[in-house]
Amino acid sequence: MKPYRFGFLGFGNVGRALARLFVVKSNELRTNHGIDWTITGVATRRTGWRSRDAGFDVADLLSVSTEDFETQSNVTEWLNAAKPDVVFETTSLNPENGQPAIDYMKAALEAGAHVITANKAPIVYSYKELNTLAISKGKRLLFESTVLDSAPVFSLFRETLPVAKLRGFSGIFNSTTNVILETMEAGRSFDEGVKTAQELGVAETDPTHDVEGWDAIMKICALANVIVGSPLLPGDVRREGIRGLSPATLQMARAEGRPYKLVARARVKDDGSIEASVRPEQVTSSDPFGSVRGTSLAIHFELDMIPGLTVISHRPNLQSTAYGLLADCVNALRSER
Amino acid sequence: MKPYRFGFLGFGNVGRALARLFVVKSNELRTNHGIDWTITGVATRRTGWRSRDAGFDVADLLSVSTEDFETQSNVTEWLNAAKPDVVFETTSLNPENGQPAIDYMKAALEAGAHVITANKAPIVYSYKELNTLAISKGKRLLFESTVLDSAPVFSLFRETLPVAKLRGFSGIFNSTTNVILETMEAGRSFDEGVKTAQELGVAETDPTHDVEGWDAIMKICALANVIVGSPLLPGDVRREGIRGLSPATLQMARAEGRPYKLVARARVKDDGSIEASVRPEQVTSSDPFGSVRGTSLAIHFELDMIPGLTVISHRPNLQSTAYGLLADCVNALRSER
Repeated sequence: MKPYRFGFLGFGNVGRALARLFVVKSNELRTNHGIDWTITGVATRRTGWRSRDAGFDVADLLSVSTEDFETQSNVTEWLNAAKPDVVFETTSLNPENGQPAIDYMKAALEAGAHVITANKAPIVYSYKELNTLAISKGKRLLFESTVLDSAPVFSLFRETLPVAKLRGFSGIFNSTTNVILETMEAGRSFDEGVKTAQELGVAETDPTHDVEGWDAIMKICALANVIVGSPLLPGDVRREGIRGLSPATLQMARAEGRPYKLVARARVKDDGSIEASVRPEQVTSSDPFGSVRGTSLAIHFELDMIPGLTVISHRPNLQSTAYGLLADCVNALRSER
Repeated sequence: MKPYRFGFLGFGNVGRALARLFVVKSNELRTNHGIDWTITGVATRRTGWRSRDAGFDVADLLSVSTEDFETQSNVTEWLNAAKPDVVFETTSLNPENGQPAIDYMKAALEAGAHVITANKAPIVYSYKELNTLAISKGKRLLFESTVLDSAPVFSLFRETLPVAKLRGFSGIFNSTTNVILETMEAGRSFDEGVKTAQELGVAETDPTHDVEGWDAIMKICALANVIVGSPLLPGDVRREGIRGLSPATLQMARAEGRPYKLVARARVKDDGSIEASVRPEQVTSSDPFGSVRGTSLAIHFELDMIPGLTVISHRPNLQSTAYGLLADCVNALRSER
């Protein structure tokens, strides 16, 4: 069995967790899915474009790299050298326009690789173009980890809900705001909430992107583009962050059994276009999101065929995110047979 | 395009809802999935084994039947006459041994049809044998509606969660008991609860099967057989129904914010076998099932890759159940390409 060649574009926390996961699951991938693999390319901002035709040793790659490797100077050369069957794109988010990830992904698809990404921005700004390119090349563009970490959302729609018509969806898409709101409900400050979220590994050094609602908005736009098929850009979404909520307001709301959460909401209008918002909403215990706390994330769908369908991912971790990419990889390679 | 020939084994509420749904979704099935269809066989206990080579008119079939049709005297003759590509099995449940549905399904698979069922018992008592037969014939045996109505459970595992290891699952699988418990929490009697559940269309005339926990047990066994691959029979599951709970106990538990629900629970042991129970448990609002009320159903998975994944189906209706069968049909025919 010839091993599939993997290329890693970005090798930060998620990329490294994914490499580890491939090692952990290698027997099962071989036995149950006929997937043998080797990593022939790794590119990062810090270490440049590296390839190794015989494959990198993963343990070596994850610690101090001692093996020989070749070096290229741009993505095209790198793809030519690493010849990947699958490219895992986990470079950092550019919320403005999704670049340079979009160009990298185009190059990888042009070179005949499946592209799997954990990066929302290319799906927000370039889904249609990228997917059309993937189809024309007989390859897959998959991105399960972008919205609810590893919990199936895109694959749920693609594989399990044929001909169902989506009327709307809502979600708790951002765990940083969840954690901040709950910290403040407990009588502590906004800054203490940020600190707690950072300690839990969910918040960036600058939490503005989460706190102002932009992270949730990017996820709404990705979902709109893919599962509704209706283009939606971040500027089209009504937005209100959590800065305006005082500890007193939050404590009272919690005491009344109607705590605030940052809720993303989208309604598909009769003409197929989408009306969407991200804003703090009060949630009761019998609401679909009533049990969603801490770092847990959730999505709720309203369908013509099912009055309400909720998926909750409880306390996903870094391995969960990596698993979303691995599941995409299995599905992409399965589609080749 | 040659239409697929459908056979309906059983034509009660679910079968009729499914026929209606095929009419409603016919344009979309044709356009998006290349599926054109005609019903060439309908068998019920009351009207016998009927077939019509040119296809039945659905409106006529759903009202007073006026068309000519042929009559057969058993399942084999009926399959020979109707020549179905897909058989929808929705005959009534035999919780003791799954017959005669199992024999019908075997005959349909032998005759070269995909078999799609809403009937738990054959999956509990004969999954392995039926599925092996289906594979040997290059056909699919699918049964998405059996556990959580239309909400994806089996297809979720099959299509979206490759190489994830299941450690255990739990569920609110029975809406009759949900409704009875909530009626009693509101200070009314067990019998009033049964009546309410019957009015909502979720309880049988004799609710014993639900109330004693057998319905939930059948669902645990189906899940164990299929997604764990570990045989489990109803007698293997520890069982306690809801009869022992007094209105006073239930009211107090609700007042404390820890209401009772009939919870099904299964744990996969290290040797791969399963330890399972169905019994009343107290659930807090932050539990995965904290927001599951009334006729809603839910399942919670613990996986090595995802700490917790909950799927909630809110107030599914008859059309939702029928939709589960339709989704199975699309997936079965998609697998032929």
